[in-house]
Amino acid sequence: MFLFYSGHLLDTSAPSTGEDVGGGWLEGKNSQGERGLVPTDYVEIITDGTKDGISCGNSLADQAFFDALSSNTAQTSSAAKSSNQVGLQQCVPSIVNNASDPWSGWNIGKSGNWDNGTAGDSWATKPESAAGQRNSASNNWDTAATFGHPQAYQGPAAADDDDWDDDWDDLKSSSPSYLGYKETESSEAGGSQRGNSRAAAMKLPLNKFPGFAKPGMEQYLLAKQLAKPKEKIPIIIGDYGPMWVYPTSTFDCVVADPKKGSKMYGLKSYIEYQLTCTNTNRSVNHRYKHFDWLYERLLVKFGLAIPIPSLPDKQVTGRFEEEFIKMRMERLQAWMTRMCRHPIVSESEVFQQFLNFRDEKEWKTGKRKAEKDETVGVMIFSTMEPEAPDLDMVEIEQKCDAVGRFTKAMDDGVKELLTVGQEHWKRCTGPLPKEYQKIGKALQSLALVFSTSGYQGESDLNEAITEAGKTYEEIASLVADQPKKDLHFLMETNHEYKGFLGCFPDIIGAHKGAIERVKESDKLVATSKITPQDKQNMVKRVSTMAYALQAEMNHFHSNRIYDYNSVIRLYLEQQAQFYETVRCSISVAEKLYWC
Amino acid sequence: MFLFYSGHLLDTSAPSTGEDVGGGWLEGKNSQGERGLVPTDYVEIITDGTKDGISCGNSLADQAFFDALSSNTAQTSSAAKSSNQVGLQQCVPSIVNNASDPWSGWNIGKSGNWDNGTAGDSWATKPESAAGQRNSASNNWDTAATFGHPQAYQGPAAADDDDWDDDWDDLKSSSPSYLGYKETESSEAGGSQRGNSRAAAMKLPLNKFPGFAKPGMEQYLLAKQLAKPKEKIPIIIGDYGPMWVYPTSTFDCVVADPKKGSKMYGLKSYIEYQLTCTNTNRSVNHRYKHFDWLYERLLVKFGLAIPIPSLPDKQVTGRFEEEFIKMRMERLQAWMTRMCRHPIVSESEVFQQFLNFRDEKEWKTGKRKAEKDETVGVMIFSTMEPEAPDLDMVEIEQKCDAVGRFTKAMDDGVKELLTVGQEHWKRCTGPLPKEYQKIGKALQSLALVFSTSGYQGESDLNEAITEAGKTYEEIASLVADQPKKDLHFLMETNHEYKGFLGCFPDIIGAHKGAIERVKESDKLVATSKITPQDKQNMVKRVSTMAYALQAEMNHFHSNRIYDYNSVIRLYLEQQAQFYETVRCSISVAEKLYWC
Repeated sequence: MFLFYSGHLLDTSAPSTGEDVGGGWLEGKNSQGERGLVPTDYVEIITDGTKDGISCGNSLADQAFFDALSSNTAQTSSAAKSSNQVGLQQCVPSIVNNASDPWSGWNIGKSGNWDNGTAGDSWATKPESAAGQRNSASNNWDTAATFGHPQAYQGPAAADDDDWDDDWDDLKSSSPSYLGYKETESSEAGGSQRGNSRAAAMKLPLNKFPGFAKPGMEQYLLAKQLAKPKEKIPIIIGDYGPMWVYPTSTFDCVVADPKKGSKMYGLKSYIEYQLTCTNTNRSVNHRYKHFDWLYERLLVKFGLAIPIPSLPDKQVTGRFEEEFIKMRMERLQAWMTRMCRHPIVSESEVFQQFLNFRDEKEWKTGKRKAEKDETVGVMIFSTMEPEAPDLDMVEIEQKCDAVGRFTKAMDDGVKELLTVGQEHWKRCTGPLPKEYQKIGKALQSLALVFSTSGYQGESDLNEAITEAGKTYEEIASLVADQPKKDLHFLMETNHEYKGFLGCFPDIIGAHKGAIERVKESDKLVATSKITPQDKQNMVKRVSTMAYALQAEMNHFHSNRIYDYNSVIRLYLEQQAQFYETVRCSISVAEKLYWC
Repeated sequence: MFLFYSGHLLDTSAPSTGEDVGGGWLEGKNSQGERGLVPTDYVEIITDGTKDGISCGNSLADQAFFDALSSNTAQTSSAAKSSNQVGLQQCVPSIVNNASDPWSGWNIGKSGNWDNGTAGDSWATKPESAAGQRNSASNNWDTAATFGHPQAYQGPAAADDDDWDDDWDDLKSSSPSYLGYKETESSEAGGSQRGNSRAAAMKLPLNKFPGFAKPGMEQYLLAKQLAKPKEKIPIIIGDYGPMWVYPTSTFDCVVADPKKGSKMYGLKSYIEYQLTCTNTNRSVNHRYKHFDWLYERLLVKFGLAIPIPSLPDKQVTGRFEEEFIKMRMERLQAWMTRMCRHPIVSESEVFQQFLNFRDEKEWKTGKRKAEKDETVGVMIFSTMEPEAPDLDMVEIEQKCDAVGRFTKAMDDGVKELLTVGQEHWKRCTGPLPKEYQKIGKALQSLALVFSTSGYQGESDLNEAITEAGKTYEEIASLVADQPKKDLHFLMETNHEYKGFLGCFPDIIGAHKGAIERVKESDKLVATSKITPQDKQNMVKRVSTMAYALQAEMNHFHSNRIYDYNSVIRLYLEQQAQFYETVRCSISVAEKLYWC
């Protein structure tokens, strides 16, 4: 069977024709004849006799990914498997390297927070009220930063290379707290809480950045003439409304080969990952904190237009344990895949530079440049050019409210599923298999007793009962292992979405703030504080923001449909297989009672 | 598929030939071509061309039972189903009427006791020490009686018909405490604890009866000449050693048609069950307390030779609730089946009279006669006539010890299985389905949120997610209902065996006591307190007891093999079916992700 689970990277933005199965998806077939969905926007329909009628342009991605997943549970680095694809080019050796990685791992320090209500706090501050009081709304972030980010961001200047290697990420490893399931840790281990439900969204005190504070918004809305930035982000109108322009060639980035490095004569050690771009096939090495740097830059630059999910948790202890490294790598991979999949983020200079620097000097130069970038915060909208007439204010506000409602509702839904999934995970890996094991042992004990009866010819029965007992011990293992094969992926996907959704209060807040300014602008025009032309500029700029929001939402929805279709399908398929496997074992044991 | 679950009643004691599958079982085939095992001892092999080579004599029982069970879960009164059997005669309309009867019911008031250690107390008193101190060993029974039997037995004389209707069994119904799963009740509801693990064995202060106290044993062992009783219980040597002689025609008794009766102008009401013997097809009515009377008579008469499992619990409240009546009927049925299946008990006068009296007068006469029976307790051995040479004392003691060890070990094993099963039952009917329901609801909520996205064409996905959600709600019901279909029977069978096994400490105690007397007898001979002839009589009588023990154990083992084979097979088959059903539901839901 052909399974989808996660990221896809595709190249052409040609609109769909024909075999549309709805929701912007087309049905496709891979080289092994396995079927699956591909997003219509990313597929080029070739009508001149190409087999199956559907083909994809240069470097159509995740064929390899699809193939890798078609072996049902994702295995590590299955690049080799897909190296001789027919008709479709390989781009993504493997995205999911986590088959044996306990999902429960990343849950440490978070389980208690998943639905403890604090996650909702950012929503409790209504976007409307945030409008006029950007700083007050940002207080949520301040709090979150205090909690979740021990090394609070000090502004770009502080992020000097000299200090830079001194962070907690290099603390010596002690006990591997992420192993096992210690609930109390979630409330105690403050340092490892970075990834808690609040912090799963943005974690920086954004109001300290130019473009995030109130003056930044006024600068953007009221500037007579926006300085034309070199970068331009076009917004086009596609079949589903405003959309980003997808690059003609896409890529993914494979995170692999974690290696321990050290410096300062071995006093400090760290883990370095190899990142290989599928388009260039060149590799660079990065430490977790480099990812963290990138995350912060992306957040500062795009965070008011595009949800940038946070990285996997920081971890103070146990950083060198194999399990942890594997788990972190899996999540860094998922995060990179998301970023690569995003048409704006993936094409940005800072992101490209992160992946493509040629030497230490180029990396440092690029790093300093990125830190000096002034097209950040609300100013990112100045780079956007919708190819469409301005929207009116009523429509702008309606769209914004709709996004707010939807993302809030989905946030609730996702958290509910995570809570339930978490509970189910615990039962499936804890008490339930223990119980099956006990049943198995009890049956075997009974058979052992029976064998001492001295009664002739009951050995067949005793063997059969022993076998039934062993079967229930097997079932215990099957039950305990199953969540890694299905629930894991459902949880990871929902956790990713929780990360996305946690970004929306700030995004909606920015839009609401801008709308509020325009509403107030009539007064300013009346008192001649601004000209009617200024007001017209404001409307135009808010309209641009609204187009950007819609383009991003369309990207979000398209990914959402794909991801949930894939992951729920994977879940169901794996579940069906599990029940079939158990049924089989039992039937085998049962047959012994008939011979 | 052809399933065995419980009792079988068969008629001929012809030893097996040919198709022996081991353990004293032959493979047979029913009229519908379904195959199963029948005990060799109960089958008459007809070699002159009868189809299948195996036939059973007149009124070979449970063909109907087999057929009834072949519909997988026993349905109520499936007598009709088997009315036109080919080649095999119908005897047992239905033994199991419990398909929808919650097993959890009988567990009320017991769950806490199942493995709380008190059950083992009777074993803690080692059989050896019980030997010389019959009364001290009996203290266990006194305690049990105080606890478990509010109306402690006052001796035969007290059981007058006038008092007889005044017992607690006619108390007015109040709250149906057996419904639901209230754990606290088990420690509080003293009155309903009769069936607790201790009381699951004999519940009478047996040392108050003639034949149970020390003098009874001396009377039996030392009597110059045993009065020849009218009843005779032969013991023959079969393929598997000493065995009871099985009656040439057997029967079962169908307990059905519970009816509410009343007397004293409606002041007292009670439930009466109809008992129909399959050999006579005649019916008599009995109340629970009549069963209780019978139980006590059987216990007093046979209790040192044959384990007589206790009746289902007495119940003070909720006695008129439909659920309770159904449950009690199921267990009375199982108990009656066990008794009918036993070659000695089923042929005894008291048992026959219980089923076959023609009018009230005959019933009362029979009742008084049974209560005056003096061949009770250890005196039952005086009716036994082994057709074999006397055993030597070493062998006698070894056999007795072996039985003690085996029954103790099996008791532990059975209790372990019950404990584990109980735990599993709770999880399967409580938290687990709730969790599946939550998963189902969470998925449906998410689909509902998705449907508000405003994004075009995602309705297929949302329908698919909704369907997946509904599937998990279905799974919740399947999980919750499953224990009634499999674990129930495993539990019932083990509970029955717990009842049997709880009788053995007294049985072994009696044997050990007799052996001890013989050991002491050399001294008595030396001091001329008894003659060498007396001593020889003693050895002969202890030898008879040993033959009886072996005959009973062979009956026990034969039934045990049959019962465990049947019930574990049923369990596995039902489990396999369950996993298959769930797999199917999931596969159906999964298909939606492909269209």
